[in-house]
Amino acid sequence: MRKDEHPDGVPLTDEELSALDAHWRAANYLSVGQIYLMDNPLLRKPLEAAHIKPRLLGHWGTSPGLNLVYTHLNRVIRRRGLDALCIWGPGHGGPAVLANSWLEGSYSETYPDVSRDEEGMSRLFRQFSFPGGVPSHVAAETPGSIHEGGELGYSLSHAYGAALDNPDLLVACVIGDGEAETGPLAASWHSNKFLDPVHDGAVLPVLHLNGYKIANPAVLARLPEAELDELLRGYGHDPLHVTGDDPHQVHQAMAAAMDTALDAIRGIQQAAREGGPARRPRWPVIVLRTPKGWTGPQTVDGLPVEGTWRAHQVPLAAVRDNPDHLAQLEAWLRSYRPEELFDDQGRPRAEVLACVPQDRQRLGATPHANGGLLVRDLPIPALERFAVPVEEPGSTLHEPTRVLGDLVEGVMAATADRRDFRLVGPDETASNRLQAVYAASGKAWQAQTTSTDEHLDRHGRVMEILSEHTCQGWLEGYLLTGRHGLFSCYEAFVHIVDSMVNQHIKWLRTSRALHWRAPVASLNYLLTSHVWRQDHNGFSHQDPGFVDHVLNKSPEVVRVYLPPDTNTLLCVADHVLRSRDYVNVVVAGKQPCFDWLTLDEARVHCARGAGVWEWAGTEDSTREPDVVLACAGDVPTHETLAAAGLLRRHLPGLAVRVVNVVDMTRLMPQDAHPHGMADSEFDALFTPDKPVIFAYHGYPWLVHRLAYRRTGHANLHVRGYKEMGTTTTPFDMVVRNDLDRYRLVMDVIDRVPGLGARAVGVRQAMADARTRHHAYIREHGTDMPEIADWTWSG
Amino acid sequence: MRKDEHPDGVPLTDEELSALDAHWRAANYLSVGQIYLMDNPLLRKPLEAAHIKPRLLGHWGTSPGLNLVYTHLNRVIRRRGLDALCIWGPGHGGPAVLANSWLEGSYSETYPDVSRDEEGMSRLFRQFSFPGGVPSHVAAETPGSIHEGGELGYSLSHAYGAALDNPDLLVACVIGDGEAETGPLAASWHSNKFLDPVHDGAVLPVLHLNGYKIANPAVLARLPEAELDELLRGYGHDPLHVTGDDPHQVHQAMAAAMDTALDAIRGIQQAAREGGPARRPRWPVIVLRTPKGWTGPQTVDGLPVEGTWRAHQVPLAAVRDNPDHLAQLEAWLRSYRPEELFDDQGRPRAEVLACVPQDRQRLGATPHANGGLLVRDLPIPALERFAVPVEEPGSTLHEPTRVLGDLVEGVMAATADRRDFRLVGPDETASNRLQAVYAASGKAWQAQTTSTDEHLDRHGRVMEILSEHTCQGWLEGYLLTGRHGLFSCYEAFVHIVDSMVNQHIKWLRTSRALHWRAPVASLNYLLTSHVWRQDHNGFSHQDPGFVDHVLNKSPEVVRVYLPPDTNTLLCVADHVLRSRDYVNVVVAGKQPCFDWLTLDEARVHCARGAGVWEWAGTEDSTREPDVVLACAGDVPTHETLAAAGLLRRHLPGLAVRVVNVVDMTRLMPQDAHPHGMADSEFDALFTPDKPVIFAYHGYPWLVHRLAYRRTGHANLHVRGYKEMGTTTTPFDMVVRNDLDRYRLVMDVIDRVPGLGARAVGVRQAMADARTRHHAYIREHGTDMPEIADWTWSG
Repeated sequence: MRKDEHPDGVPLTDEELSALDAHWRAANYLSVGQIYLMDNPLLRKPLEAAHIKPRLLGHWGTSPGLNLVYTHLNRVIRRRGLDALCIWGPGHGGPAVLANSWLEGSYSETYPDVSRDEEGMSRLFRQFSFPGGVPSHVAAETPGSIHEGGELGYSLSHAYGAALDNPDLLVACVIGDGEAETGPLAASWHSNKFLDPVHDGAVLPVLHLNGYKIANPAVLARLPEAELDELLRGYGHDPLHVTGDDPHQVHQAMAAAMDTALDAIRGIQQAAREGGPARRPRWPVIVLRTPKGWTGPQTVDGLPVEGTWRAHQVPLAAVRDNPDHLAQLEAWLRSYRPEELFDDQGRPRAEVLACVPQDRQRLGATPHANGGLLVRDLPIPALERFAVPVEEPGSTLHEPTRVLGDLVEGVMAATADRRDFRLVGPDETASNRLQAVYAASGKAWQAQTTSTDEHLDRHGRVMEILSEHTCQGWLEGYLLTGRHGLFSCYEAFVHIVDSMVNQHIKWLRTSRALHWRAPVASLNYLLTSHVWRQDHNGFSHQDPGFVDHVLNKSPEVVRVYLPPDTNTLLCVADHVLRSRDYVNVVVAGKQPCFDWLTLDEARVHCARGAGVWEWAGTEDSTREPDVVLACAGDVPTHETLAAAGLLRRHLPGLAVRVVNVVDMTRLMPQDAHPHGMADSEFDALFTPDKPVIFAYHGYPWLVHRLAYRRTGHANLHVRGYKEMGTTTTPFDMVVRNDLDRYRLVMDVIDRVPGLGARAVGVRQAMADARTRHHAYIREHGTDMPEIADWTWSG
Repeated sequence: MRKDEHPDGVPLTDEELSALDAHWRAANYLSVGQIYLMDNPLLRKPLEAAHIKPRLLGHWGTSPGLNLVYTHLNRVIRRRGLDALCIWGPGHGGPAVLANSWLEGSYSETYPDVSRDEEGMSRLFRQFSFPGGVPSHVAAETPGSIHEGGELGYSLSHAYGAALDNPDLLVACVIGDGEAETGPLAASWHSNKFLDPVHDGAVLPVLHLNGYKIANPAVLARLPEAELDELLRGYGHDPLHVTGDDPHQVHQAMAAAMDTALDAIRGIQQAAREGGPARRPRWPVIVLRTPKGWTGPQTVDGLPVEGTWRAHQVPLAAVRDNPDHLAQLEAWLRSYRPEELFDDQGRPRAEVLACVPQDRQRLGATPHANGGLLVRDLPIPALERFAVPVEEPGSTLHEPTRVLGDLVEGVMAATADRRDFRLVGPDETASNRLQAVYAASGKAWQAQTTSTDEHLDRHGRVMEILSEHTCQGWLEGYLLTGRHGLFSCYEAFVHIVDSMVNQHIKWLRTSRALHWRAPVASLNYLLTSHVWRQDHNGFSHQDPGFVDHVLNKSPEVVRVYLPPDTNTLLCVADHVLRSRDYVNVVVAGKQPCFDWLTLDEARVHCARGAGVWEWAGTEDSTREPDVVLACAGDVPTHETLAAAGLLRRHLPGLAVRVVNVVDMTRLMPQDAHPHGMADSEFDALFTPDKPVIFAYHGYPWLVHRLAYRRTGHANLHVRGYKEMGTTTTPFDMVVRNDLDRYRLVMDVIDRVPGLGARAVGVRQAMADARTRHHAYIREHGTDMPEIADWTWSG
């Protein structure tokens, strides 16, 4: 029957239907094969236990649904000539995506040893979840992917990130009903309030309700359909339902839904791009309701499997030992009629490939999923435009992030036409003093506006939503598709995305080892509103531990910078924005901070990563220092300099060296991090045997963890944040945590031998100053004048 | 005009309206006073700069809305005799909650020095955000609070946690429109699918749309009302709208909405408790739309403030220096007509207090917000019932978490009537092998069911939703209101709640220092499906860093246990379930694991936290060991014992000591953690000078960070996970990370001097075994028989 013979107007002719179904069956067959087979890939022989993998690993349950979506995306991509990318939220369904990539040929092009024939099929099967093979999930190794989907929650924000500034791209996004329960996913539905139909591409969410998670029903699958529709409309979408377990009926319904959705998207984009009224559209969403483990065993050992949670991983678990299971597996595999799908050489037959698009339009071959192929160097203006003049160290003050805002504005302006740079943050751009950027771009916003709003812009590239998860997901999607960005965040609350950055680091670590993945722009964090200056918020906003978290991860990927002043922040920012394949963490204050280094000095200092500030110390060429005052971070540097000044005045005979560390990984051993210093270098900087009083921005033991192998480690005494926080004055915060200038001087006196009676008196004076401080703040609520008015030069 | 004179049937008489408005004005006045005033609290004198705090800190914007909700909750609590608790999502509006607590008297009862009179008011004002005073947020210091609201996102899950198993409790929950954008909040709306109207109390969400966050409009505030209603109905709620900026009109609307909501709740509960049809009700939600900074300055310096983001913190910033600002502040304060609100002694007048309930019904005095007053010891069955027999070490295998499941089932059964214990987890109870618990309680579930479902139970106390955030929020709310629980989670994905556990630890740290807060049950994590056994999932599921994260926090609160086998897990679980005011992290495997210790031995070992396993070593009383093999965690213990066996066989002359560590904080210095060992004890256990090869479950440098001050630290060599992960065999995972038995033996040979030629041969044999392993797994996909079949006794 041809299409025009269908009285009910279904979209597919019988021929199309047959071809789509063949493709889907082929993908299902290949998915099952990957989970089970070591040998006999085309079932040319009766199936035997010896053909079965010794360890059965993987996830069948979601695979047939993913195969259906891939198949139908192929159809519309080919038919409409689309540029498309798909995010596979249930990425544990790795077999499905690998199967489709192999079918379309992109897998063999990426990995020529896995050819598109019987031998290649055999390798495809064997390598899956096999030692030395490929991981069980969609991962960096998977062609066409920018999203692993191992830790659930980020598919939709990744999809939006990919769509931003890609006006001709369709980003489909399969969301599992398990993933839909997570917070990050739930928040990211509102991303459509930030998607510009003029400059951005489209996101087509496919909410896949297969009913069960690992062992439980999924919440959204168990809402009455009307209630689910209310929810999706409340998210700003128009739902299209595809429901069923009869493949032919579902193919027709899915094709119809895809056509309707893509027509709607085209309509929305055309209207917006032809200057139609600027109102937020309702974007389509497809709700796909098919059984978990669809087409797999209906029952196993008398228990229902298809359509239940029992289909989640490996439905037949005892295939090697239980002949019934083996027979059931063989029947299952043969139910796809492999002989109709693959030719004598094991190549997919023409009908199977009829729906597959060509070249870069194949989902496994799109360069958008290998963003390094598309990324261009970011046009960063010369830092001289922004650098602050420094006549002498510590005589002027600037707010480092405010000056950085000028640089970001410069980058934003320089990318106005290219549109390949975004600034993201959880409603903190202005709070973090980066608001200069609004001169070059407003804030993306498609929802209602009022007359009191400022800087909202339907076409803006500053992205603010009060969801660190969504910010991170957007940026990851944006970077992995070949663009650039910066995430500015309160230091304490970046922990909200601890687990997301884990996954991104793992992705980059894996990508770097793949010959075919080109380097992408680094994920850059600016952490500000930091632990030492939470005047408005106190204890809940005090946590410098993100650095510790990140430094646990793959050293080839992670970088941590603590610029001590404005010009060093500019140099660090310039460096990280140019870099590739890293996660860069930059911690810098937004409060007025003394300028210590000129731009040229800052450049040299940042290039070294750590160095002696000769002007601040009192050692001379004739002898070694008696003590090293080391510091990392803006507030610790300030206190260290103040301590150096006190020592210079009160103990003038003492030879003090001041060392500042910008790049924390310099402290690590050379074999533990690419930036690690040689021991000889470390000894030269910190001395092998003198006391080192190290004032560090965060948790003090981190410095020990980085430096424990160093010669002089036993002489290292670190001060830092030790969870002594509340709403109080800035100086009281350092006093509470024993990071203040007076305590640092006491530490020096306690650790340098033979300082004599004068030092005893100085020590007492320091202790008295701390006592005076306590009394003063309780009386006045502000820091003592000697603190507030202190300058290095004074 | 009396109520019966109102033609439109508004709920409040003029007298009631006047009294409610007086209370609200008083709370607003006190809120502003806290932000600004050091002196002259009742404005008896004209306001002068000297009366103004030198540092103006706090958040005005949300305060009038919170004051409105508090006022109207007072009304319904008093009128209906309710037992109620309120979660203040916008907890940065600390001034509001403090003001109300002071008005109702609960503040002065808790802190007698802040009396309910002029002097107390003066102290209330001065102490706010002042050094030595109280934090600017609702915090543990705030009477009536279990929720800080500093890090946004958790109000609603806390509210549900508080309502569970509290059938007579109303938990109101104010959700800011900023917080509503976060993922955790977005996910937690679906908590109503888990709330049992029979055994649980009610949650009444009040979504407060004041329109702006710090600097941006809020998404939900900028949806058309019809779209917002669809969203809320999609969440399973019936929205009631209260909108306006005219106080009297808003009071009437709010009173009406509260009455409607509470009538609906009563109806739902009555129907369910009288055995009505078991269907999920639609619970009410109030949408409160009032201006940000309502009743504050309309404009400042010519710019609009009320109703905009400029009202977020301190609307008049230059009051001490700018006479116009000072005058504007005075006019603002006087607009509340303090003279009508407070008597000559500064006490609230009777009209102001007319709506305030009595005693424990006051929101600031409810014992539900001081759960330690309500908590009872958990009935934990004797461990003998569950312990596994151990004839000799390492001869039998058990799955530790499966046996733990029996214990949890015992606790669940013993609390069947009390209903004060819950097990929470993100759809992993069965995956984590705790399914025995279903014999005592099913899984809470109020959504649709099908015939294939298992263990779903409208009245169940096992809570599973695929949102770690929601699990954590539920449990925190449950514990802080005086109950018990356990959170079982995949080890890698507990990082999802890194920031939440930060906040809970901070809460407990602060609570412990407050005389009036009674200790609550600890927050207990069971982390399983751990890094070493991710056979199905690979690299994305491999992260043991939660321990590192937690150990950065307040040592008086955090505890970390790595039981090496089943009986030690039972002992640890028993201990943590009995404990108070801690965050306990227990890491244990679910895969078959050798039994090393009998229950009695396990008790002793766990009590010590770390100890020598004499039976495993080869030292004797005549001499010191040549080397110490230390281990922590089940897989490292297994490999260490295997290494000890190899050494015993191949280097019989070597005196080996085996040390197992269960309690990681024992490694810390005595002054750094309450469990820290004395140096003498550490030296006795690990020796001061012998090589220590430490096989650790997680990132190896953690052990250095804990032990860097110890005498023998330079001899400590730690092996652990170093991000070398993928989908592979269990033994390949340890080989990839150099934690395997062969590598440990090589480490011993490399570090013990003078072992001679035989050791050279042994070392080569170990290296050969590793090579053999690599070849074997690539060929067979499984571990070598010598690995798979290994036993200690064999």
